[in-house]
Amino acid sequence: MPPAGFQDVQAMVFVGFGLLMAFLQRYGFSSVGFTFLLAAFALQWSTLVQGFFHSFHGGHIHVGIESMINADFCAAAVLISFGAILGKTGPAQLLLMALLEVVLFGVNEFVLLSLLGVKDAGGSMTIHTFGAYFGLVLSRVLYRPQLEKSKHRQGSVYHSDLFAMIGTIFLWIFWPSFNSAPTTLGDGQQRTALNTYYSLTASTLSTFALSALVGGDGRLDMVHIQNAALAGGVVVGTSAEMMLTPFGALVAGFLAGTVSTLGYKFFTPTLESKFKVQDTCGVHNLHGMPGVLGALLGVLVAGLATHEAYGDGLESVFPLVAEGQRSATSQAVYQLFGLFVTLTFASVGGGLGGLLLRLPFLGSLPDSQCYEDQIYWEVPGEHEEEAQGPLRVEERDTQA
Amino acid sequence: MPPAGFQDVQAMVFVGFGLLMAFLQRYGFSSVGFTFLLAAFALQWSTLVQGFFHSFHGGHIHVGIESMINADFCAAAVLISFGAILGKTGPAQLLLMALLEVVLFGVNEFVLLSLLGVKDAGGSMTIHTFGAYFGLVLSRVLYRPQLEKSKHRQGSVYHSDLFAMIGTIFLWIFWPSFNSAPTTLGDGQQRTALNTYYSLTASTLSTFALSALVGGDGRLDMVHIQNAALAGGVVVGTSAEMMLTPFGALVAGFLAGTVSTLGYKFFTPTLESKFKVQDTCGVHNLHGMPGVLGALLGVLVAGLATHEAYGDGLESVFPLVAEGQRSATSQAVYQLFGLFVTLTFASVGGGLGGLLLRLPFLGSLPDSQCYEDQIYWEVPGEHEEEAQGPLRVEERDTQA
Amino acid sequence: MPPAGFQDVQAMVFVGFGLLMAFLQRYGFSSVGFTFLLAAFALQWSTLVQGFFHSFHGGHIHVGIESMINADFCAAAVLISFGAILGKTGPAQLLLMALLEVVLFGVNEFVLLSLLGVKDAGGSMTIHTFGAYFGLVLSRVLYRPQLEKSKHRQGSVYHSDLFAMIGTIFLWIFWPSFNSAPTTLGDGQQRTALNTYYSLTASTLSTFALSALVGGDGRLDMVHIQNAALAGGVVVGTSAEMMLTPFGALVAGFLAGTVSTLGYKFFTPTLESKFKVQDTCGVHNLHGMPGVLGALLGVLVAGLATHEAYGDGLESVFPLVAEGQRSATSQAVYQLFGLFVTLTFASVGGGLGGLLLRLPFLGSLPDSQCYEDQIYWEVPGEHEEEAQGPLRVEERDTQA
Repeated sequence: MPPAGFQDVQAMVFVGFGLLMAFLQRYGFSSVGFTFLLAAFALQWSTLVQGFFHSFHGGHIHVGIESMINADFCAAAVLISFGAILGKTGPAQLLLMALLEVVLFGVNEFVLLSLLGVKDAGGSMTIHTFGAYFGLVLSRVLYRPQLEKSKHRQGSVYHSDLFAMIGTIFLWIFWPSFNSAPTTLGDGQQRTALNTYYSLTASTLSTFALSALVGGDGRLDMVHIQNAALAGGVVVGTSAEMMLTPFGALVAGFLAGTVSTLGYKFFTPTLESKFKVQDTCGVHNLHGMPGVLGALLGVLVAGLATHEAYGDGLESVFPLVAEGQRSATSQAVYQLFGLFVTLTFASVGGGLGGLLLRLPFLGSLPDSQCYEDQIYWEVPGEHEEEAQGPLRVEERDTQA
Repeated sequence: MPPAGFQDVQAMVFVGFGLLMAFLQRYGFSSVGFTFLLAAFALQWSTLVQGFFHSFHGGHIHVGIESMINADFCAAAVLISFGAILGKTGPAQLLLMALLEVVLFGVNEFVLLSLLGVKDAGGSMTIHTFGAYFGLVLSRVLYRPQLEKSKHRQGSVYHSDLFAMIGTIFLWIFWPSFNSAPTTLGDGQQRTALNTYYSLTASTLSTFALSALVGGDGRLDMVHIQNAALAGGVVVGTSAEMMLTPFGALVAGFLAGTVSTLGYKFFTPTLESKFKVQDTCGVHNLHGMPGVLGALLGVLVAGLATHEAYGDGLESVFPLVAEGQRSATSQAVYQLFGLFVTLTFASVGGGLGGLLLRLPFLGSLPDSQCYEDQIYWEVPGEHEEEAQGPLRVEERDTQA
Repeated sequence: MPPAGFQDVQAMVFVGFGLLMAFLQRYGFSSVGFTFLLAAFALQWSTLVQGFFHSFHGGHIHVGIESMINADFCAAAVLISFGAILGKTGPAQLLLMALLEVVLFGVNEFVLLSLLGVKDAGGSMTIHTFGAYFGLVLSRVLYRPQLEKSKHRQGSVYHSDLFAMIGTIFLWIFWPSFNSAPTTLGDGQQRTALNTYYSLTASTLSTFALSALVGGDGRLDMVHIQNAALAGGVVVGTSAEMMLTPFGALVAGFLAGTVSTLGYKFFTPTLESKFKVQDTCGVHNLHGMPGVLGALLGVLVAGLATHEAYGDGLESVFPLVAEGQRSATSQAVYQLFGLFVTLTFASVGGGLGGLLLRLPFLGSLPDSQCYEDQIYWEVPGEHEEEAQGPLRVEERDTQA
């Protein structure tokens, strides 16, 4: 059987992301189904692309468990971008996006990890920051001025929120495996898992507290719990394998949960009204800001690395520092440069992707048909629902 | 703790199969509940039966993780047969079916693996072909000419399809563990997992493509996605541990997804109208045809085995060939004979099982009461639903 | 990545307990959400408390995978207590309960395992008996004479029962990991997993049989299947690592399923009417009685321990007996005393907890507002449902 860590990552990608996005009342089939399609495609395409960068020897790409985990990581970045445009794009557009994003993910990762010697085990930069800003810039290019027409389908219903919550829980429990999957066995891996675990518990508590505080009547908002509680896993993606210490992880998680919850409450509306970025799942709050924070935390913790603190472990975490090729400060500068490179690749790539997805033959949806499964799926009992259900509201819209 | 591979297989049997069958609108309690009952019973009974065949020494049956995995495999075959008669049989009938099927599964597996020296790690023959044709023949014997009377309950509703989709995803992500659980550790196990994984990604893509192609209006059908996407796991059940190569796995998965989707669209209706086989879950498309294809693929790949291609691994995959007792061609003939034996056991056993299940004291359901939880379960709020819900349709039927 | 056993326990705590309690029709957000909050809090707080008792050296608490598993076990006890008061307490009250219970859990566990040398790997005493009676006594102190006013929300609906059933299945499949997580690797761990597994299959069968027998019309009750089927895991919590034998495990599981199902049918109503204990989830039937039975089974199996039966394994299961410091009979007496200590800590702690939770500033719910998400959560479409849904019933109640 494959190692447990690989299966945990697979469960996050397919069950976690798929269900987390199933919160929309009339878009559950598409959320789960297109996650399935996109991830299956990204896994294959990424195995080729990353294989070309990392394991192309003698005319052959060498595959193994490691390449499977790398491919899952790339699929995660694609699904994060999917979250920003959820409900507003069809499967052909999504596959085209994945075709481009997988290549850019591979290039960006290669530049960071192989050329710059940047450390990013859990992917605060390569996965979360890259995936989020790629998707957000893409969503900006695809801006829909009349999205208001689909607003009645943009919310959740009781059971769709429960499905999404199962996705959240799956992501939460397996996140320690995600961050520690690429690290070498032993002490380093256990440290990574423990730091992730502490950060997640802290972001969960701060999310609950903040959600009740910012809600007008002291009530909790499911959107916050489903998403911001996970920010603790994102924020330690770079630094969890470093000597972050449990206390540092708790502080990082607490901050990430706070920033993420405040982002959902106050920043997402501004993002749409001022910056014309329509971010369906709030990936800016869950992956964007916590990812950048995580990269900066990595800069800080890398800059503080000493031979005393790491002992024999320095070789596996910062090999260039251990071998004397770089000082810790220099490593920190490289880390910061890695963030800059990632933001550049993500923005340019997302812009390019947006232009591609506007190609006329891809058949873009009208603004009044967003967040609706019936466009792409045979939905059971749909005729009945068309007569009585949410679509009636739309008909009224058209009459008005 | 038990090894991860065992837990993955348990998750497939209980969560995967249970939810996959929960697609029916009024049969969710029975799908999940009877899966639970049948699997718990089959695990115990199979531990005894298989223990008798494989680990009966000095008057004692020896148990361990291996016997637990074998028992789970047998439970999977029973649940596949359950899929063919889902909604049309009661718990007493199902337990009787399991009582018989577990014994025949044990005999068939013993004949194939121990007497004939056939290889079938992931059970294309012993699990999928056997379970599917046992259930299909049994369903033929239990043919209900007036099943039309329960047709209004045979479809899904929005949320039941989402539950089923969770089942699909669980089966998908853990299938590499399933196929590789019985293989020896190391290279062979990793190869098995990788081949399964490539085959599954390919069958997922071909299923999405075909589903949109064969749908009249280009829309996707949830039934295809929930089922045919998994055919890639079935089709490499025999050959995944062999030198199938990633490319071979991709081709096999692509074909399996195609055949399975076309089966749902075109063959299932014929199966009922021409052959009087009512296959509730379409097990012929997901397990039957892909299982037979998988067996034939095993014949082909076994026949091509050479010492050069396998190196030291030949001993663990084809010990009789490695030891010179058989040529590769001879092994291929044995593999083919194994398929023939399996089809015979399954057909005769299914026929016998059907006759047993028609025994009058088992209280068969009337044709108008199929696919209905209320027969066996106390359903919450049922009085209300009886007045307003799907059963109203039935009342109208009766009046007509 | 962290070891698979740890991830399995996490899945039980967050997915299993959370969904199992989501059976209530209008309390799914709170069941899953407060489980998430309570578990995240208990994990942090318990790491500190248990760290103080078990791994406080040189002014530092030492953490690792072992301390994470211990913290999960403590969280499980807190969630069991939560089950007894589900729907009748707010998040502030729950956090206060956890604050107290985690400390008492740590003290009780320290007394049993470290001072008395009692064995309780899977926590029949320390987790199930402690959690259940702590919660039940607490529920007694918080007795609501007019809870009848919320009765219309106390039942399930079709899909909430399916969510709960997923929780059951997750607990069921990972229970072997739960009971064996703290045992040492190797034979002992495999024995623990196997015994748990046999016990669970037996309790599942006896629960199905009893549920149909005690139902007036031979139909199955989802409440029994969701809960009593798991009693087999509870009842071998103490003895699974001992030489219980597969046959002993089957008998224990069969009895536990029987007692638990009969408890739901006959004892829970009495518990409320006679003893004024309102036990929302029936934790007395799933954790209380099977936990005490499991402790007594541990007394019996410990008393029968011989050097011959255990061989080299005696050292790891009963080190004090192996070293000659205690006879097997003496170990049995200590086990019995451990049960007595646990019941005392749980009862006194639960009583104290109840008094704390009645502090006026914690804002207790009125009896007519129990089992209702809208008090604590922004519920989608709630205005609509307020007009037409279950709350209408309440309005009528008030008018009457």
